[in-house]
Amino acid sequence: MPSLGAILVNNKVSNVRAPDGEAAAERVCAGVAHLLGLEPWQVFPSSTGVIGWRLPEEEMLAALPGAVAALSGGSALPVAEGIVTTDLYPKVRRVGLGAGSIVAFGKGAGMIEPNLATMLVYVLTDIAVPRATLRAMLARAVDASFNTISIDGEMSTSDTVAIVSSGAVPCVDLAEFEGALTRVCRELAGDIVRNGEGVRHVVRVRVVGAPDNAFARALGKSVVNAPLFKCAVAGNDPNVGRLVQAVGKHIGIHASGMDISRLRLLFGGVEIFADGVFRLDPEKEALLREHLRSAELYASKPDASGFFAPQVHFPPHERFVEIVIELGAGEGIAEVIGGDLTHEYVSENADYRS
Amino acid sequence: MPSLGAILVNNKVSNVRAPDGEAAAERVCAGVAHLLGLEPWQVFPSSTGVIGWRLPEEEMLAALPGAVAALSGGSALPVAEGIVTTDLYPKVRRVGLGAGSIVAFGKGAGMIEPNLATMLVYVLTDIAVPRATLRAMLARAVDASFNTISIDGEMSTSDTVAIVSSGAVPCVDLAEFEGALTRVCRELAGDIVRNGEGVRHVVRVRVVGAPDNAFARALGKSVVNAPLFKCAVAGNDPNVGRLVQAVGKHIGIHASGMDISRLRLLFGGVEIFADGVFRLDPEKEALLREHLRSAELYASKPDASGFFAPQVHFPPHERFVEIVIELGAGEGIAEVIGGDLTHEYVSENADYRS
Repeated sequence: MPSLGAILVNNKVSNVRAPDGEAAAERVCAGVAHLLGLEPWQVFPSSTGVIGWRLPEEEMLAALPGAVAALSGGSALPVAEGIVTTDLYPKVRRVGLGAGSIVAFGKGAGMIEPNLATMLVYVLTDIAVPRATLRAMLARAVDASFNTISIDGEMSTSDTVAIVSSGAVPCVDLAEFEGALTRVCRELAGDIVRNGEGVRHVVRVRVVGAPDNAFARALGKSVVNAPLFKCAVAGNDPNVGRLVQAVGKHIGIHASGMDISRLRLLFGGVEIFADGVFRLDPEKEALLREHLRSAELYASKPDASGFFAPQVHFPPHERFVEIVIELGAGEGIAEVIGGDLTHEYVSENADYRS
Repeated sequence: MPSLGAILVNNKVSNVRAPDGEAAAERVCAGVAHLLGLEPWQVFPSSTGVIGWRLPEEEMLAALPGAVAALSGGSALPVAEGIVTTDLYPKVRRVGLGAGSIVAFGKGAGMIEPNLATMLVYVLTDIAVPRATLRAMLARAVDASFNTISIDGEMSTSDTVAIVSSGAVPCVDLAEFEGALTRVCRELAGDIVRNGEGVRHVVRVRVVGAPDNAFARALGKSVVNAPLFKCAVAGNDPNVGRLVQAVGKHIGIHASGMDISRLRLLFGGVEIFADGVFRLDPEKEALLREHLRSAELYASKPDASGFFAPQVHFPPHERFVEIVIELGAGEGIAEVIGGDLTHEYVSENADYRS
C-alpha cells in the first residue's frame, strides 16, 4: 500500500497562520481518513485562498461524505476541473511511458513565483520508482519547471507539488522516467503561466553568458517581473528601453562591477542592443510589434460593468514573447517564463463584483 | 556669478544610450549658452522620455531662441508646469526662511524608485550657503525624501535633483536652512507619489525594530512594490494576507534566520497580526475598509474609449494608507512611501490612444 492514501484540496481559505489552523486541518484529515478506511497521516491536505482566516471546519466535515461518494476512477479531468479557482481552464498534462504513464494536473493563477507559490500540482503515475529516487527526481524536475516561472513575483506558503505512484507498472529505464517526468512538469508549468491571472502574453527570457546559473535565473526573474516592461508587452509596445532598464537595474543592484560591454539583447529574434548602444529603426519596430501581436493570447476588453474578464476559455496557442539576454560574462544560463501586466490582472485582484 | 547658469529640460526623448547621444546633448547645451552669453559647461541638461532614441537635435536648436525669449522672472509655476509629462498637475513647494526662501519643483510620475528615477527636481534658493555645505545638505535631504519613495520599483538613468543658490540673502543659521531644505524635499517627494502614474492611494509604511535602517527601508520598499498588495489597496480591500506575504517574502529572502516571533503589524492603526497569528474580525475589517476608502484620491472610471484616465487635476488631500511593521529585532527604522496598482497605471503604460 502506498503511504499516501488521499489528497484533500479546498479553496477560498488558505488556512495560513489562522488561530488553531493546524489542528483544524488535522481534524478534517481525520474525517477523510475515517470515511476511506485510512490512517489520518495518509491524508495530504492542501488549502488555497484568502490568507489569515479560519478554515470552515464544520462545513468541510459535513461535505466530506458527499465528496467521498462522488469519487470515481478513470480520467483526471474532473479533479483538474475541481481544483481551479481563478484559473480559466483545467490544466492536465500526460506522458505515456511503456505500459505506464505520468499524469500531472495543477491549479495556480496568481501569487505565483514558485519557490513555490499559490500553486497546487499533483503528479500521478502507475510506474514503480523507489521512493527516495522518485523524491530526488521530483526535486530536479521542479527546479527545471515550476521554479522557472513567475506571474507576479509574489510567493505563497501554500505551494504544493506532490507525486504519487501506484507502483503497478515496473520501471524499465529510470533515466527515461525522469525525462518524461521533467517534460510533464515543464509543460504544466507553461500552462500555469499561460493561464496566470490576467496573462495575455507569455514571456520567455533566456539568459546566457551569466557568471553562473543562479545569477542568470535571478536576472530573468527581474525582467519578467518589471512592471513597466510587463505593461509594454501588454500593449504590444516594443518599448525596449523598459527591457534594458530592467536588465540594468538588476545588474546595478546585484553586480554593479560587472563588465557589460559585451551585453547584447534580442527581442523576438531581432537584435536591439549591442556594443553599448541601441540598434533600433522603424522597420525593426514593426517586426517587434508583430512579434508581440502574434504572441497575444486574447484581446483585452471590459464587460458592460467595466470588469476586465479574460476573453478566453482555453489556451489558444503556445507562443511566447522571446527575449534573449547575452551577458558575455561567463557560462551561466537560465530560462524564465512570465507574463504581462494587464487590466485583467488588476480587475482580478482589485475589482470586486458585488 | 554662480557656476550654473541655465537648466535645459526636454521631454519625449530621454537620450539614453542612443548613438552619438552625449555629443548631441553637448551641442544643444552650447546652443543655449550662446544665446544666454554663458559658457557651455554652465548649462545643465535634463532629458526624460523614451529610452534608446536619438535626441531631436535640429528641432531643439531651432526652438531655443523662442524659449530664451519667453524667459521671465517671478513665479516658478510656469517652469513647474512646463516640465510635466504624464504628471496630472505641476508640483511646487516653498519654505520661507528669514528674508530668503527655498523653492523646489519637480516632475515624475512613472519609473519611480529614486535612487533615483525618472524624476527631475530643481531646488532654487536665494540664501547663500557655501557650495560644499549645500551639496552635503542636499545629499542628506534627498536620502530622507526622494530616496524613500517608490511608484513601481523601476529605476531610471535620467534622475536629477539639482540645487541652485543665487547667494543674494545671507544664511543666518545653517541648521535651520538644512531643516527647511529637508522639509521642502519631503513635501515635494510626497507630491510626486501622490501624482505617481495611476496612483489612487498613497501608502506610507513605517518599519520599526529592524536590524538596521537599511533593512527597514528595503523591507518597506518590498511592501510598497508588492503587486498583489498594491491591487488590494487599489480595490479598498483590506486583504492583509497579501501584506503579510510581502513582509514574509522579503524576510525569507534576505534574512531567513531572523526571529520573527515578535512581529506585529498595524493597518490604519489597527493591530492585524501579533504573537504569530492574525488578529482579524468583521468589525476590524470594516475599520480597515473605511481607512482605505478615506485615503482614496479619486474613483477609478474608464472614459468612453475604455481608457482609464485619472479623475483628478489637483491633489484632493494628503492622507495615507498607514502601515506599521514592528519587527522586534533591533533599532532600525524607516519610512517608505508608495502607491497602489491600478487600471490607471496599466492604461498609462500599456494602452495607447491613436
